[in-house]
Amino acid sequence: MKVGYKIWLDNHGKAFGDGPCELLRRVEKRMSLHQAANQMGMSYSKAWRLIQTLEERLGFALLERKVGGPSGGGSQVTSRGKALTSHYERFRKDVEKNIEKVYHKHFGFAEKKGRK
Amino acid sequence: MKVGYKIWLDNHGKAFGDGPCELLRRVEKRMSLHQAANQMGMSYSKAWRLIQTLEERLGFALLERKVGGPSGGGSQVTSRGKALTSHYERFRKDVEKNIEKVYHKHFGFAEKKGRK
Repeated sequence: MKVGYKIWLDNHGKAFGDGPCELLRRVEKRMSLHQAANQMGMSYSKAWRLIQTLEERLGFALLERKVGGPSGGGSQVTSRGKALTSHYERFRKDVEKNIEKVYHKHFGFAEKKGRK
Repeated sequence: MKVGYKIWLDNHGKAFGDGPCELLRRVEKRMSLHQAANQMGMSYSKAWRLIQTLEERLGFALLERKVGGPSGGGSQVTSRGKALTSHYERFRKDVEKNIEKVYHKHFGFAEKKGRK
């Protein structure tokens, strides 16, 4: 037995969570929402709509489009988007640590007895 | 902004969580899975399949059927089912308290600034 959970930031709906966090990290590396979505098995249009929804709920832009240039454009994560991503990652780690601790406090005995 | 989450006990799939906990509490009161499911807007067959799945994953019975008698039978929660329900409720409260604490540690400044 173990504890399972999902966690997210909510502002009249999901405003940020593990999926968006991974997507932004990938955009940061690839400079492209298209490639980032692709890596996660998500269609570009779905990723685009997701970003629109999150930006609305957060009240600030996560991505900025770069048009033209030698690489033919692409997307980049805004500085507020990068700050939120890092902030969320630290929060996420702390949540994980705490949930595991609470789980073991309440259900740790089951493990000790060798139950699964 | 606030933190959103779902939590459950997992043993090769969801083995217990908020929904099952509420369902068992209602069975305890009504002595009937049928009525308990109904109160939660769930079909009897769905509730029955859910209980079967949870029992398989937990490795013990949650309900026992009472056949006949003046009330025409019904379901009762087993003593292990009752113990798990109480145990889970205490765990759930502790998780909630801890997640809120971690959220405020990391994102509390946003509230203080009056952001939503």
